[in-house]
This record gives sequence, structure tokens and C-alpha cells, in this order.
Amino acid sequence: MATIKDIADKLGIAVSTVSKGLNGANDISEKTRQLVLDTAVEMGYASKKVQKPGKRKVCILVETMEYDNIDQFGYEIVVGFKLSAARHHCDVTVIPTNLNMQTQEKYDSYMLKHGYSGSFLLGFALHDNYINQLCKTSVPTVLLDNYIPNKHVGYVGTDGYNGIDLAVKHLYEYGHKNIALLNGSKNSLVTNERYQAFTQSMEHYSLKVNPNLIANGYYVPECAKDYVGSFIKNGATAIVCASDLIASGVIAELNRLGKCVPLDMSVIGFDDLPIAQHLTPTLTTIRQDRVAIGKSAFMMLDELIGGVSISKLLLKPELIIRNSTGTCP
Amino acid sequence: MATIKDIADKLGIAVSTVSKGLNGANDISEKTRQLVLDTAVEMGYASKKVQKPGKRKVCILVETMEYDNIDQFGYEIVVGFKLSAARHHCDVTVIPTNLNMQTQEKYDSYMLKHGYSGSFLLGFALHDNYINQLCKTSVPTVLLDNYIPNKHVGYVGTDGYNGIDLAVKHLYEYGHKNIALLNGSKNSLVTNERYQAFTQSMEHYSLKVNPNLIANGYYVPECAKDYVGSFIKNGATAIVCASDLIASGVIAELNRLGKCVPLDMSVIGFDDLPIAQHLTPTLTTIRQDRVAIGKSAFMMLDELIGGVSISKLLLKPELIIRNSTGTCP
Repeated sequence: MATIKDIADKLGIAVSTVSKGLNGANDISEKTRQLVLDTAVEMGYASKKVQKPGKRKVCILVETMEYDNIDQFGYEIVVGFKLSAARHHCDVTVIPTNLNMQTQEKYDSYMLKHGYSGSFLLGFALHDNYINQLCKTSVPTVLLDNYIPNKHVGYVGTDGYNGIDLAVKHLYEYGHKNIALLNGSKNSLVTNERYQAFTQSMEHYSLKVNPNLIANGYYVPECAKDYVGSFIKNGATAIVCASDLIASGVIAELNRLGKCVPLDMSVIGFDDLPIAQHLTPTLTTIRQDRVAIGKSAFMMLDELIGGVSISKLLLKPELIIRNSTGTCP
Repeated sequence: MATIKDIADKLGIAVSTVSKGLNGANDISEKTRQLVLDTAVEMGYASKKVQKPGKRKVCILVETMEYDNIDQFGYEIVVGFKLSAARHHCDVTVIPTNLNMQTQEKYDSYMLKHGYSGSFLLGFALHDNYINQLCKTSVPTVLLDNYIPNKHVGYVGTDGYNGIDLAVKHLYEYGHKNIALLNGSKNSLVTNERYQAFTQSMEHYSLKVNPNLIANGYYVPECAKDYVGSFIKNGATAIVCASDLIASGVIAELNRLGKCVPLDMSVIGFDDLPIAQHLTPTLTTIRQDRVAIGKSAFMMLDELIGGVSISKLLLKPELIIRNSTGTCP
């Protein structure tokens, strides 16, 4: 493992300058500091401060996910993470990021500069700069709903196979045969998983998968209006949605078209956001236990920091039956 | 939740007798005690002693898995579990089980009787009595390499997709095209996963999957002799084995047939048991970090006891390159 002297030798500067760069002293230029940090990361330098037990601090980096109030998806995840961290005497800083930050500074350098032992990344997409850098990072990192093949990076999420199966089984028991899937955006791990889970489950209950009843929308209510009409035309009696927000758009569109939920069409969401209880009718949905996701993410990060290389940790979803599903018309 | 009085009323016996039954007093018959325990379990009674924090004890039930010495698969798993448990001030008892024990007493009754808050099950197969009972248990339970759809039961293991992909990629980079898979016994979750992972990986590297080069053996060396000859006949230049023990049998059989490893045939194992280093040639294999499996199993059990419903926790495997693999002849 590289020492401070190795970094000084490589850059041809004094050991004291390297030390200042690593410790964030004010009397060297920002440019020199960044050079020291980037070189330290490249050479595999690991700060003793970061390694010291009992003094750890970690961060949650949040890209495009709302977490400010309890109605938003990220809120309880952050709460769960902080609860677990507090129990393990670990400080947590929540840092909203943006594309600028991701292009200005390398992920590993950022983490070293601020003395974080590890981080939990929320709302990042596979094309994000930081995600691309994770293939080579040596910083313990936990990702929500994304998988990176690196032993320092773990994936936490909800068991989508189990979740979609609960939804299809529930509709099957109500006598539905022509079940539609309004999925999330393409090219996402979770979207692919839900699609595969849907076809597997349909086959399991000997139901026919009709390609005209499967569509990719986006994780917003507005996407519903492009697909609901076509689902009706193609004989659907129930729609499984990849999120509660999509389901809320589906119910609105069904109302606009003069259809009654659940008499004419059953609708199931995914997530169990607080909004699910406030829709008319109230939404049957697949609950993701977001506090548990947060707690598990910390636990996983703690193990990764301790050298246990966890690949994947999935929580069990739960079917919450409300009023948006009923017997097949 | 049922109380001691509810149990007494249901059985038409005194509260004090129920209390004696639950606490294992000597002055009631074994038959009455068992009746009290089974009724308590049926009625959903949860002992306060078990729930009390800081006083927990858990057990590892071991069916058909060797764990007595470091050469055996279960040894380091048990060590890892105990290490983690000690750190959390939790007592661990290791209990070898057998079919008799499983038929004589229900799993939940056994756990209640001995005051265990939860258990880790090693070496059980899907047809075992205890596994069948797990669908309805309310006892926090962690299973190695097996999945049960119950929110109190979690699954810990190694990411087989990642593991098999590491093996296929390694052989692909050595120029192999005709790669065989000697898998474990049918009807096991892990065996199915490794088969699917193999076909996916082969497709990923644009290699043709030849059905004549795929076979199900058993997790013992002796199974190799039934398949190696056929693999040679069908043009294989490399064999991926589902365990190091199978790989040891494959190498022995290749030697018997006058073939040289890796000049004529490359061989890869799975597990990285100590034996892998002692074979001739030393065995390239996919390492399962068994200490980490044990540690993670405890961590998962601890969370399940705390009410966090974890479905699945998978560890990252690692490719250990030794001398049994080489460039394609």
C-alpha cells in the first residue's frame, strides 16, 4: 500500500505538502491539493484516519431522488440508514449531488478528501459518471437497485421477483387472466427484473403473456395516458404498475375514459408510498420496506468497510390489499 | 398475541402447568410439556424470555454437512457465525440434527422449548421436514443456499451468477470454446442457478452451449467417472465443476484416461476448499468466502430477530487462478 512518501516521490514535492493536501490544510493551492488527492487514489493510498475504528463517518450521496418529506421515496430510506448508523456510532452526512460535481472531481478523490469510510448512493443511473467509476473504486459503496461487479460495491434493494409474483398471484386469485404490465423506463436493472418476474409468474399460473399488454413507461404518472387505452382495447382486466406514481396516472386515465376501478379494471402499484392510501380508490400495492432498506444499506456498508464482500442484499416485499383490485369482470 | 392463560384455557389445564411446560420444570410429564409447547406455537405465543434484548441465544442446526475440521465446507461458516455472534453478545449452540429429531418434534416447538431466538440451518435439503415447516414458521431463521417464501426466513449464499461468469470468462480469455459443465445434483436451487448462469455466460461471450457438454452429477468426486469420457468424446477442452470435490474427481479420471491437466483439458472448481491447493495440479477455482458467509448469516439473523425482513444476502465470489487451467490446446 502506498505511503505519503511514495506520493511525494511520484509528484516530486515535499512530504509535508502531500500531508497538507491529504489533511485539507489552507496553505497550499486547491490545484495542488486535488493533484495530491488524485495521485493518492491512483496509488492506492488509504488514509489511516479513515481506517481508524470508532471514528468513522460515511455519507449518502443523492442524485435524482426526492427525500425531503415523508411522502417521497427516499425519506424513509435515509431515516433507516441514519438509525442504524447511530446505533453503530457512525456519523452520516447527506449530500445532494449533480452532474457538475460528478464531472469536476473523481468519486474516490472526493471520498478521500472528506475522510468518508464509505458511501450509500441513491438515485444514480447506470450512465452517471460516479457509477462508471465504481467498477474500479476501492471505497466501500452501497448502491440502491444497481449492480456493479466490484468487490467493494454492494447492491441493496427489494426482491422484485417475489414482489411481482405477489401481485400476479393476487390477481390470479381474483380470476384475472388478461393482465397487463406497465413497467418503468427501459435499461434499468429493476425494470428488467420486473419484466422477467412478470413473465415467469404468468407462466407459473398458466396465464398467457400477451406482448400487447406489456409496455415500458417512465416512473411518473404522466406516462399512463400513452398505454391505458391500448391495454383496454387489447382486453386487459388488470394492470400491474411498476410504481405507485405510475398507478396513480393509470387510475386517472381510466377515470377519464369512463372506466371504474376496480369494477372494470383492477390496478396494482409498487412501493406503497403514502400517496397509495390517499388515491380513490385506495391502492392495492407491493410494499417496499424503505426503513429496512436504509437499515440494511448501512449494515451492508459496515460489513464492506470491515472487508466482507457482500454482493447483493434483497428485502422481502409485502402485498398490501386495498380497494383498487377486485374480482375479474 | 396468545398469553399463558389462553394456552391454559385451550388445554383445560392450570396456568401453573402451562408455565412449567414452557419453562421446562421437572415435575410435569414430558408428554404434557410437549402438548403445552405445540399448543403455544400453534396459538402464536412468543416467550418474553426469547424477546428480551441482551439475553439472546441462537443455534446452528446442522443436517448433512461436515464442519469438524478446517478441510470441511462447514467449518469456516460456523467460525464466522460465532465470531459475529460474540461481537453482538449472543450465545451460539451448534446442534447436529437427523431425520429422527426432525420427525419427533416440530421445529417451532423445539426452538421455543430451548429458548432460542433464531437459528441458522446448514446442510438441509428441500425435502427435509424442518424445511417444509419453514413456510409457516414465525421463528427467525437463516438458510444456506435455500429460499423459502416466508418473511421470517432469509437466504444467505454466494452469488452463483457472478461465480460461474468468472469461470467462463477466465476460460474464454484462454481461448476455450468447447466448455463443459459438470453440475451438482438436480432439484437444488444452487444447481439450477449455476446451470442458468453457465448458459447466460456462454451466450455473453458468444460461445455455443452444447447439451452434450452439460451433466448433473453429485457433490462427490466419484460422480466424475460417468461424464468425463463423454465430455472428451464431444470435444470439450475445459470443464467447469460445481465444487472442488467434483473437480478432484474429474482430474483423477482425466489422469486415468491418460489426459494431462491443463495441457489437454482445463479444469475449474467451485468453493476453494483447502484441498484445492493440494491437488496435482493445484486447482483454479471460484472461492466462496465461508467466514464471510457465517458472519453475514448472523448479521441477517440478527436483523430478522429485530423485525427486518431480509429475503436474500449474496456474497461475492472470487476467481483463484492456480495451475489446472491453461490456454486452449
